[in-house]
Amino acid sequence: MKRTLGVCYYPEHWPEEEWADNARRMVETGLTWVRIGEFAWQRMEPASGRLELEWLDRAIDVLGAAGLKVILGTPTATPPRWMLNKHPDMNIVTPDGVRRKFGSRRNYCFSHLGYRQECARITRILAERYGKNPHIAAWQTDNEYGCHDTTLSYSTHARDGFRDWLAQKYQSTDALNRAWGNVFWSLDYNTFDQIELPNLTVTDPSPAHVMAFRRYSSDQVVAFNRVQTEILRAHTDAPLIHNYMGRITEFDHYTVGEDLDIASWDSYPLGFLSDRLEGTPEHKARYLRQGDPDMQAFHHDLYRSVGRGRWWIMEQQPGPVNWAPYNPAPLPGMERLWAWEAFAHGAETVCFFRWRQPAFAQEQMHTALLRPDGVDAPALAEVLQVSKEISTIPNAGTATARVALIFDYTSAWAWDVQPQGADFDYFRLCMSHYRALRRAGLSVDILPADTQNLNQYKLVLAPGLMVIPPSLMAALTTFQGTALIGPRSNVKTDEMSISVPLGPNLPNLDSKVVNTESIPPNCAIALQNGGTIRHWFEHLEGEAPIRWSTADGRPAIVSNGNLNYLAGWFDDETLFKLIAETCVDLEMEVTDLPDGLRIRDTQTHRFYVNYAPEDLEHEGLKVPAAGVVWKAF
Amino acid sequence: MKRTLGVCYYPEHWPEEEWADNARRMVETGLTWVRIGEFAWQRMEPASGRLELEWLDRAIDVLGAAGLKVILGTPTATPPRWMLNKHPDMNIVTPDGVRRKFGSRRNYCFSHLGYRQECARITRILAERYGKNPHIAAWQTDNEYGCHDTTLSYSTHARDGFRDWLAQKYQSTDALNRAWGNVFWSLDYNTFDQIELPNLTVTDPSPAHVMAFRRYSSDQVVAFNRVQTEILRAHTDAPLIHNYMGRITEFDHYTVGEDLDIASWDSYPLGFLSDRLEGTPEHKARYLRQGDPDMQAFHHDLYRSVGRGRWWIMEQQPGPVNWAPYNPAPLPGMERLWAWEAFAHGAETVCFFRWRQPAFAQEQMHTALLRPDGVDAPALAEVLQVSKEISTIPNAGTATARVALIFDYTSAWAWDVQPQGADFDYFRLCMSHYRALRRAGLSVDILPADTQNLNQYKLVLAPGLMVIPPSLMAALTTFQGTALIGPRSNVKTDEMSISVPLGPNLPNLDSKVVNTESIPPNCAIALQNGGTIRHWFEHLEGEAPIRWSTADGRPAIVSNGNLNYLAGWFDDETLFKLIAETCVDLEMEVTDLPDGLRIRDTQTHRFYVNYAPEDLEHEGLKVPAAGVVWKAF
Amino acid sequence: MKRTLGVCYYPEHWPEEEWADNARRMVETGLTWVRIGEFAWQRMEPASGRLELEWLDRAIDVLGAAGLKVILGTPTATPPRWMLNKHPDMNIVTPDGVRRKFGSRRNYCFSHLGYRQECARITRILAERYGKNPHIAAWQTDNEYGCHDTTLSYSTHARDGFRDWLAQKYQSTDALNRAWGNVFWSLDYNTFDQIELPNLTVTDPSPAHVMAFRRYSSDQVVAFNRVQTEILRAHTDAPLIHNYMGRITEFDHYTVGEDLDIASWDSYPLGFLSDRLEGTPEHKARYLRQGDPDMQAFHHDLYRSVGRGRWWIMEQQPGPVNWAPYNPAPLPGMERLWAWEAFAHGAETVCFFRWRQPAFAQEQMHTALLRPDGVDAPALAEVLQVSKEISTIPNAGTATARVALIFDYTSAWAWDVQPQGADFDYFRLCMSHYRALRRAGLSVDILPADTQNLNQYKLVLAPGLMVIPPSLMAALTTFQGTALIGPRSNVKTDEMSISVPLGPNLPNLDSKVVNTESIPPNCAIALQNGGTIRHWFEHLEGEAPIRWSTADGRPAIVSNGNLNYLAGWFDDETLFKLIAETCVDLEMEVTDLPDGLRIRDTQTHRFYVNYAPEDLEHEGLKVPAAGVVWKAF
Ligand SMILES: [Zn+2]
Ligand SMILES: [Zn+2]
Ligand SMILES: [Zn+2]
Repeated sequence: MKRTLGVCYYPEHWPEEEWADNARRMVETGLTWVRIGEFAWQRMEPASGRLELEWLDRAIDVLGAAGLKVILGTPTATPPRWMLNKHPDMNIVTPDGVRRKFGSRRNYCFSHLGYRQECARITRILAERYGKNPHIAAWQTDNEYGCHDTTLSYSTHARDGFRDWLAQKYQSTDALNRAWGNVFWSLDYNTFDQIELPNLTVTDPSPAHVMAFRRYSSDQVVAFNRVQTEILRAHTDAPLIHNYMGRITEFDHYTVGEDLDIASWDSYPLGFLSDRLEGTPEHKARYLRQGDPDMQAFHHDLYRSVGRGRWWIMEQQPGPVNWAPYNPAPLPGMERLWAWEAFAHGAETVCFFRWRQPAFAQEQMHTALLRPDGVDAPALAEVLQVSKEISTIPNAGTATARVALIFDYTSAWAWDVQPQGADFDYFRLCMSHYRALRRAGLSVDILPADTQNLNQYKLVLAPGLMVIPPSLMAALTTFQGTALIGPRSNVKTDEMSISVPLGPNLPNLDSKVVNTESIPPNCAIALQNGGTIRHWFEHLEGEAPIRWSTADGRPAIVSNGNLNYLAGWFDDETLFKLIAETCVDLEMEVTDLPDGLRIRDTQTHRFYVNYAPEDLEHEGLKVPAAGVVWKAF
Repeated sequence: MKRTLGVCYYPEHWPEEEWADNARRMVETGLTWVRIGEFAWQRMEPASGRLELEWLDRAIDVLGAAGLKVILGTPTATPPRWMLNKHPDMNIVTPDGVRRKFGSRRNYCFSHLGYRQECARITRILAERYGKNPHIAAWQTDNEYGCHDTTLSYSTHARDGFRDWLAQKYQSTDALNRAWGNVFWSLDYNTFDQIELPNLTVTDPSPAHVMAFRRYSSDQVVAFNRVQTEILRAHTDAPLIHNYMGRITEFDHYTVGEDLDIASWDSYPLGFLSDRLEGTPEHKARYLRQGDPDMQAFHHDLYRSVGRGRWWIMEQQPGPVNWAPYNPAPLPGMERLWAWEAFAHGAETVCFFRWRQPAFAQEQMHTALLRPDGVDAPALAEVLQVSKEISTIPNAGTATARVALIFDYTSAWAWDVQPQGADFDYFRLCMSHYRALRRAGLSVDILPADTQNLNQYKLVLAPGLMVIPPSLMAALTTFQGTALIGPRSNVKTDEMSISVPLGPNLPNLDSKVVNTESIPPNCAIALQNGGTIRHWFEHLEGEAPIRWSTADGRPAIVSNGNLNYLAGWFDDETLFKLIAETCVDLEMEVTDLPDGLRIRDTQTHRFYVNYAPEDLEHEGLKVPAAGVVWKAF
Repeated sequence: MKRTLGVCYYPEHWPEEEWADNARRMVETGLTWVRIGEFAWQRMEPASGRLELEWLDRAIDVLGAAGLKVILGTPTATPPRWMLNKHPDMNIVTPDGVRRKFGSRRNYCFSHLGYRQECARITRILAERYGKNPHIAAWQTDNEYGCHDTTLSYSTHARDGFRDWLAQKYQSTDALNRAWGNVFWSLDYNTFDQIELPNLTVTDPSPAHVMAFRRYSSDQVVAFNRVQTEILRAHTDAPLIHNYMGRITEFDHYTVGEDLDIASWDSYPLGFLSDRLEGTPEHKARYLRQGDPDMQAFHHDLYRSVGRGRWWIMEQQPGPVNWAPYNPAPLPGMERLWAWEAFAHGAETVCFFRWRQPAFAQEQMHTALLRPDGVDAPALAEVLQVSKEISTIPNAGTATARVALIFDYTSAWAWDVQPQGADFDYFRLCMSHYRALRRAGLSVDILPADTQNLNQYKLVLAPGLMVIPPSLMAALTTFQGTALIGPRSNVKTDEMSISVPLGPNLPNLDSKVVNTESIPPNCAIALQNGGTIRHWFEHLEGEAPIRWSTADGRPAIVSNGNLNYLAGWFDDETLFKLIAETCVDLEMEVTDLPDGLRIRDTQTHRFYVNYAPEDLEHEGLKVPAAGVVWKAF
C-alpha cells in the first residue's frame, strides 16, 4: 500500500463550473483522494422519494476524470427536514428528557428503527448506483458516530429497545434482579416493561443498570452501521470506512470496526487540546499551536488496532477551527508534522478537511486548504511538500511494536458510571501510561481486551481494565514478557459487581485489593523511593512480593517477576521511571525524550517529531521546532 | 443508660444460612444493636398486598437469639416498583418541573397523600406483627429524611397541598396579600387557586412566598413521620428513632424530633468534609483522612438537643464511602476517635454502617466492618477495642454545658431564600461561631430558638437568628450571663419582612441595624484593635455603648454589659479572640487549643480528641495523631 | 434645559395620609421629579376590566400640589395574576423550552400579541385620563426592557411570529436557503412552517438562522414599545421615556429610542461591577464601593446617543442593592460623584431609586433615600448637597466631543452567536477601547453604525463592527481625522457570512483578513515595540503600509494615514499607548490619568471625578477619594 493524501470536498457548495478547476488544483497539490457526499442528503433527495443524483454523477465524473479517487459518504448524519414529517419522534432525547430539534446535524436517535430503515434505503440507492463506479474507490458510512454526545439517547424508542435487549439477555426479571443486585434498595422488577432508562433518578441508579444501558447503546451504533455495511458489501468491492472522532468512548469502536475494512479518524490537534484533554494551563499554552505531543499518536495506534492494521486520517485540521473554546493557528510546519507522524504510525492516507472554506453556515470560521476567496491558504504549501516527500518513501507501514497497551471501551463506561473519585477517567488513565511509554521512546500497539496472543510483545500495560477476559488471562498466564496491570484492573465482574474472591486474581500473584481510596488533586501518597501516587490508591493484601512500597510501607507494586500489579495511579514522572526501570530489566532500548520530542519507527525509518515551540536535540540529532526528521535504519 | 455499640445489617442481602454466624461475630465484636429492614419493602411485600414476612421473622429470631437487640426500620424510603402502578404521580418533581424516576431511593414526594397512606399501611403491618416482639428494642422511621435534596418537591400534589395550607393559615387572600407585601410588582391574588409554587419565576419570587413554601415543605416531613409514629406508638413501647443526615436543614428537625424518643444521625466525617463543608484546600487536605475537627461535634450537640438529651449515631462511616467527590480511607484510629467523641458528647449508642460490604449495587464501593469476601475490614478491630473500652466507663452522659449556641431551621431557610451575599449561609455562620467556642475548649449545648430558660448558661450565642421569639426574648431579658447576638439577628418579622422598628430590638440596648452590606471573599473590613469582618457587616445606630469598633470608627460590637450585638461576621481568629475575652470577663476557664485538638467533658471525665495528622500536646498531655485520651476529673 | 433631580416613588406602598408629607420632604430635598405607577397595574385594575384609578388621581394631585413633576409609567412590566386567566400562554419560554411562571415580573413574551393588546388597552386608559394632566410632565413606557434575560423567548408565539417575519423578509424558502447557506448539512427548508426557533439543536444552528431570530426578537421589543408610544402621542405632549438597564444588548436601543423623546437608564454602579463586568478580583476589590470608573460614563455617552442628545438617569443606586452577588455600601460621596458625572456627560435629570425602602417583598434589602422606618438614609444628604450645587451651575449640556466610538447592537448579537473565542464579547471589546480613551482624558461620543457624518470628530473608533454600512463607509471615505477600525470589523455580510472579497475592504487600504485566531487568556502575541495582543488576532495580507508589527513581523496595525485597521485586541496598556500616540499625531490634548481619576468636559467646565479610594492629584489639582471637582474654563 502506498502512502497517499486526500481532501474532503463539497461540490454542492460550489458552482458546477468550478469543479473541474478544483479537481485540477487538487491533483496539482499531490492529492490522490477526495471525499464527497456525506452531508448532501437534501441535495440527493430534496423531497421524500424524489431523487436528484445527476449532479452527483457529474461531480464523480469530473473528479474521477481529473485522476482522483472518490470516497463516497452515506449522508445519514444529516437527515433532511422532510424526514421529520415522516418520523416526528426520530430525534435524540437528552438525559433531562428533552427532545433535541432539527437545525444542525446528528439529530437522530440510534434506537429509532424507522430512521434506520430510511438510512438503509438511501444507502441502497447509492450502492446500486455507484457500487461499480470505477471512480468510487472507498465508502464512508455516516460521519463521526457519537460526536456532539449523540450515542446515548433517552427516547421512548431507546427505552423500548433497551427492554427488548434486556429480555433477550436475561430471559427473566428474576435473573436480571439477581444479576443487578436489585435486592438493594427494593429495586426488583416483575416485568421488563417496568424498567426505565437510568436517567432522572433521585440519586445513583444501579451501576449494573447503567452499564446495561451503555452496552445497549453501543450495540445500537454497531447495528446502525451494520445495516449500511451489509448493503454496501452486496454492491461494491471498495473498502468501507468510518471516520471516528477523537476521544469518543461511548461506543465500542472495535466492534464497529469489525464490519469495516479500514478505520479512519478525524484529527484536530489544536481543537482537542483546547476542548477535550486534561492539562495544566502551562502545558496548554506551550502546545497551543502544535497540539498535545501524545494525543494524536494515541489515536493513530488505537485506530490501527480498530482497523486491524489498516487506518487513515479522514480529516486533518488545516488551520484554526471554529468549534473549540479557543482557536489559534498552527505553527508553520505542523501540517507536515501531523501528516508524517500519521504515516510513521502506519497511516495509508491522510485527508485534509477541507478543500475550500465556505463563507457561509456553521463552519465558516473553520479554515481549509483554500480561503473563502479561493486563494491558497497556508496549509496548502505544506500539503504539497508532504506529497513530494512521500514519493521518496512511498510505502505505508510501521514497525512491529514490542510494547502494548490494552484500551477497552467497556472499561471507559465502567469508570464513567462509577468513577469513585471525581477526577478518575479511564481515557486519562490510559493516556498517562501511554505518555510514559512515549517519553521512553517506545513504539506502542494499542490492543482490545479480548486479545488472545501477546507473543509479539515484551511489555504489556493494562491500567484500569474493568475485567480481564479469559482469553487475555490465558495469554498473560503464559506471557514471557513483563505485564504492568492495574491500578483498578480485574476487580469487577461483567455485571459491575466487585469480584469475589477479590481481584485482580492474577496467576501466581497472591494479592487482593481489599480497600480503595480516591484522593483530591492537591493530595498525594508518597513512595518509599521518591515519587507519588495520585488520584487512586488500592490497599493490597497477600503474599505477593512487593516491588515498590509507599513511604509508610504499604505495597505500591507487587510482582511475581513478569506480572506486576500497580496499586495506584503514579504521577507522570514516576510512571516514566517505572517504564524506564522495566525496560532496563527487559533489556529494551530506552531513552528519556525532551518535552515535546517524540519518536516512532517504521520498518525502514525512525521518525522524530518535535511538538515543542523550540528546536530540540536528541542523540546528536537536531529537530527544529514544529519539525519532523527521519533517518533510515 | 449504658454506652453501647451497634451495626446496620441487611439479612436480605445474604444467604439465610450465614445469618447465625454473622450474629455470632457481631456479638463477639462487642455489638449490642443491629438495625435491619429499612430498605426491604420489596422483600416484605413483593407485590401489592402480597406480604412475605416470614424471612424477617426468622432474621429477627436469629439475631435476637444471638443476644442482639434489633432496631427495625420502616421501609418507606424505598417504595417498590409496583407502587408506581398504583400511584403513577408519586415521585418528586425538581424545581425545573421535571418528575424524577424510579431506580434509586427517596423518589417519593412528601405531599403525595396516597403514598403516605401506603406508608401507614406497611407501618401498621410491621407494628402489629413486631410491636411486642421482645427482640425489637427500637424502631427507626424511614431513612435520612431530606437526603439527596428530597424535602422540596414541585409536584401538583405539593401545589395543591400548599394552597390548602395557605388557606388555613391566612383564611383570605387579602390577608395573604398584605402579609406578603403583594402590592409590590402587582402580585396580589384573588383566590388561593391562583397561587403557584415559587419555582420557575423570571426573577426572584417574593421571599414571603418562598418562606411559606419552605415552612409548608417542612411541615410535610413532620406529618409524614407522624403518621408512622402514631401507628407505632399504638403497638409498641420501644423507643422511636429517626436517623437524620449531616447538614440537612430543609426541614425542622426539632419538630420531627418531638414525635420521637431518640434522635440519631448518620456520621460520615470524610464524606462530609469532601462534599458539604466550606474550607480551604489546605484545610481539606490536612483533615482528608480524619474529617473536620468540629463538624461531628456540632451535630452531636445538635442532635442531643433534637432528642431532648437522648441521641445516637445510627450510621458511622467505617472506611471509604462511595458517594463523596473523593473517598479516602480514614487514618488508623479514627473509628475509635469518632466513637469516643460521640460518647463524650453524650451518645448512648454508636452504630456502624454496615456489617458487610455488598459486592453489588449502588453502594458496593462503600466499605463496612467486613469486606465483600467476609473477611474483617480494618474498622472491625477498632470497634472491638471501643467495645472493651466502654466497659470500663460504661455510663452514657455528658457534662452540663455552660455555653449555648442557638441553631434554628427557620433561619436557615430565611437566609437561603434571601442570602443577600452569595457566600452567606446560616449553617456556615453558626459553624464558624461554634469553631471558636471549641477552640477555646468549651463544651457547648445547641438550643432551638424557642428555648425558654437560659439559667444554666453563662454564655449564649445567637448568630443569624432571623427572629428572636418572645420566649427567648423574655429569657434574654432576665439573663445573667453574656449573650452574643448577631450578626443578622432579629432583623426580620415572621413574614420575612424587615422589622420596623428596625432590629435587633434587644432589651436595654439602643441599637438599630440601619444598613447592611455583603462583601466578597477577597474583601474585609478592618477592626480597630486588629482582626477583620468578612462577608457581612451591619451599620448600627443608637446610644448603645460600643465594645468594638471598625478601624474607621463604626460600631462592630455594641454591648450593655451582658447583651452584645455583633455587627459583622468576624474572621475565625477574631471570633476566637472575642470568645476568649468574653470568657475571661465571665471568669470561665478558657484555653487556646492547637489546630486539630478538641476537648469535651462528661460529668466524670475530660476527653481529648486529636484530629490532626501529628501528635499534639496540651497542658502537658500528649494526644497521639488520630488518637483520643481521657482523664477522670 | 436645567439640571434637575428626581426620585422613584410608590404611593401604593404607603398609607395615603403619608403622601403629602413625603411630597413635602421630596421638595425639601431639592427634587423636581417623581416617577410613579410603573408596577401598579393590579392596583389600577384589580380585576379584568374593573378600573380603580381614583387613588392614582389623588396621588398625582398630592405630588403635583407639592410642586413636583410627575413621570407616569405604564405598568406593563408587571401584568396582574388575572391576566394569565385571559392569556394562559403569555409567559416567556426559556431556551430549554420551559415556560416561566407568574410570581415576579417581566414574565410576558414579547411575541404574544394578545398581551400586547392588553398593554395597548391599559396605556390608552392612562393616556386618556392623564394625557392632559398638568402634573404629568413625562411618561415612561414599561420598565427595563430586556432585564432578567427577557428579550428572547422560545414560545410558540415567538415561533409563529418568526416564521411570518421570515416569510416577509425572504418571500421564498429558496431565497432563505440561499441566504443562510442551508446547503451546508442538508438544512434547506421547503416551507416557512418547517423553520423552528434555533434552540435545542444538537450542535450549533446556522449563524444566519440565529441572527435572524435575534433581529426578529429585537424587532418585537421595538413593536411592543411602539404600540404604547403611538397611543401616548395621541393624548399627550409630554416627553416619552424608557428606562434602559445597564449592559443589556439583546435589542436595538437606538431603534426603540427613535420612538421616544428622551433616553434614560438605570445606573447601579456597585451592582454592575459585581454582576456584569469583567475585571480581576483586585480591580473589583479596589472599586467595590465606587463602581467601575468607566462603566457609568460609557452608558451616559451611549444613552446620550440613543436619546439624540436628551438623556436622564431614571434610577440611581442609592446605597446597597439586593440583587448583585455581593452588595456593599458606596463610599460616602459616591452619590454626589455619580450624579455630577452624569450631569457632566449631559444628563438633564438624575432620579434616585427610590424614595423609601419598603420593609417587604423582593427588594426589601434594596436601600433608598429613606430607611424602612422613614428616617433619612445616608444618600439623602448627598442628594440635598447636589440639589444645592446644581443651582450654581444649572444648565444641562456637555462639551462637543472630538472623539467617537461606534457601538452597534447587531454586532453584539453577531459575536454572541459566533464568538469564535470563549472570552470574546463585543461589549467588553468596546469597553476596553473606551477605557483607553478615558484614561487619555478624552470626552467621547458613542455613535450608531448608521452614522452618516463624522465631520465633528478628529478620532473615530470602530472595534468589532460586524458590517460597516454604506453610509458610514461613505463618511469614512471623506473623513479627515483618524479612524481606528477593527479588530473583526467589516468582515461579514449582513447574513452573517464571511465577506468575499475578504474584509475589511476599507477605502485606500489594501488589506484583507485572511486568517483569524482566538487565544486563551493566559496567552498573548508580542508586539515589536512592546505590548501584546490578547484574545483575538487576524492575519492581514495586502500592500497597506504597516504601522505596528508583531514581534515576528506580521502586521498588527495597517494604515493609510487616516484609516487604520487593527489586527488584534490590544491589552489595556497598549491600547492606551495607541490612543496617546494617535492623539499626538492629531495634535489633540492628551494626558495619562491616574487609576480611578476621570475627566469630562461640558461647554463651560471640566469635571474631575475620582473613583479611587485614595485622594489623587492631576495637573496640580487634588481630587479627594470618591470626590468630584470642577473648574470653569
Ligand atoms: Zn468533522
Ligand atoms: Zn446512609
Ligand atoms: Zn430597577
